[in-house]
Amino acid sequence: MSTTTSGSSVNVPTQFLQVQNERYAFRRFGQGSGRPLLCMQHFMGTLDNWDPAVVDPLASAREVILFDSAGIGRSTGGVPPTVSGLASHALAFLDGLGLTTCDVLGFSLGGMVAQEIAEERPSVFRRMILVGTAPRGGEDIMHLEKPSLAKYFRDPNLQGYARLTRIFFAPTESSQAAGQAFIARLSQRTDDLDPSSGPEVAAAQIAAFREWEQFTGDRFANLKAIRQPTLVVNGVHDEMIPVANSYRLAENLPNAVLLTYPDSGHGSLFQFHESFTRQAAAFLASDSPLAPY
Amino acid sequence: MSTTTSGSSVNVPTQFLQVQNERYAFRRFGQGSGRPLLCMQHFMGTLDNWDPAVVDPLASAREVILFDSAGIGRSTGGVPPTVSGLASHALAFLDGLGLTTCDVLGFSLGGMVAQEIAEERPSVFRRMILVGTAPRGGEDIMHLEKPSLAKYFRDPNLQGYARLTRIFFAPTESSQAAGQAFIARLSQRTDDLDPSSGPEVAAAQIAAFREWEQFTGDRFANLKAIRQPTLVVNGVHDEMIPVANSYRLAENLPNAVLLTYPDSGHGSLFQFHESFTRQAAAFLASDSPLAPY
Repeated sequence: MSTTTSGSSVNVPTQFLQVQNERYAFRRFGQGSGRPLLCMQHFMGTLDNWDPAVVDPLASAREVILFDSAGIGRSTGGVPPTVSGLASHALAFLDGLGLTTCDVLGFSLGGMVAQEIAEERPSVFRRMILVGTAPRGGEDIMHLEKPSLAKYFRDPNLQGYARLTRIFFAPTESSQAAGQAFIARLSQRTDDLDPSSGPEVAAAQIAAFREWEQFTGDRFANLKAIRQPTLVVNGVHDEMIPVANSYRLAENLPNAVLLTYPDSGHGSLFQFHESFTRQAAAFLASDSPLAPY
Repeated sequence: MSTTTSGSSVNVPTQFLQVQNERYAFRRFGQGSGRPLLCMQHFMGTLDNWDPAVVDPLASAREVILFDSAGIGRSTGGVPPTVSGLASHALAFLDGLGLTTCDVLGFSLGGMVAQEIAEERPSVFRRMILVGTAPRGGEDIMHLEKPSLAKYFRDPNLQGYARLTRIFFAPTESSQAAGQAFIARLSQRTDDLDPSSGPEVAAAQIAAFREWEQFTGDRFANLKAIRQPTLVVNGVHDEMIPVANSYRLAENLPNAVLLTYPDSGHGSLFQFHESFTRQAAAFLASDSPLAPY
């Protein structure tokens, strides 16, 4: 049904898993004694948006599993307009794989899905890495209409990866250069690619962000129930999901370490991939009940 | 004039250095290829307040220098009521030692002194670790009169180390237990001790905190001039110098990584000494011009 392939995200074949009504696309590679690491992706991102400089080093000590949720890339189904709906697909996928426990790297939207899963089924994740994301009830989550982001979406000269570099990296020479290097790394994979996400994916996921901003009762109180050791990571100049959201995560999760990077935005893990993978590997290698590593 | 002794902060002899009108007390121990690490202490802290579980591991790869500023412990002179005055003493001490460059660990008040020195004489510090501290113009710095702290100072049953445990650690069982372990480690040193700081030290240092809260011009703009790779560390439940001050440091210093610890207060570096020394050692071992490590 599924096989694990050592090697790189650049050339690992895409696999497909049929679970009930859906067929999920995923890539699985790497090996080692660590728990498998489920990687859940950002707004509109597909399997092809995972930076090999991030996921390949992590695959040297464990299996890495990249996952297209429903309606993304070559996965069937509709894109749910809620984080809870996204969590259901991720859980169905893990159940279909027969994975009862793993570690997780949730980036942006994927980090929200990871939190939702940790609340709904606490037994799944041993350790969690949440990058560039926000708690339920967070602030200023993916408001692409605000001037600091809208200018990039309105510019007809910025399409595809050129726009991604602007919105994922800080407006400095050094961060933009890191963005160019990131795009070059993504472009190494040339076969067996996912189709890009279209406007219907964007609309459903934006709806999920709007719903995630809502909260009832004590703000952030839900985070107290997430006991997993957690590493929260953010760039301090993140315009898409501002770093204050990572502060609220680290303050309210009972067992979380926060790491922030300078001169970087939403894509801090790609900009500082050497540091990030070193820190993430050290965090994942720990079997302490406590997050500090 | 000064000698370096391998070994532990628990039993290294105190040395004295005469510079102009003052005689500074210090301890110097450890060895290795790293730059010497100057350790600058917190409000009312003396040489005896450095946790051996923090400074001894760091001394395995470099010299560690613990320093009593003027009027502290057995150092002569009056305690300056400004951070700038404290920086002058630290610079005089380094000049007297003949140290033109080193790394620095500045904790709380000591972290303010480190920032001041980095601005006044940028050539001194190669890499900076700033723990539980605040930028100039920071907020809610050491307001011991606020209810959340005053209750510990008004309680006649809390004296000395018992009070320190309450104000440096979070009000949880786990953090208070870490506080007890910290005190036990401090108590290992039994000879050649500093006298404790008295009310005149407190008054002058509180004046320094009040002056440090003042700023002119653009708030935090002065931090842009501090180019050193910097590691900022804080416990998320720090009541003495709230973690928001560390956020402002990491957002405004151009080259700083932030690390926060859960379930901990002002003394997060002591509570999570294994993690802190591992992270600090990795940070100090780097010779990259960039802070991420």
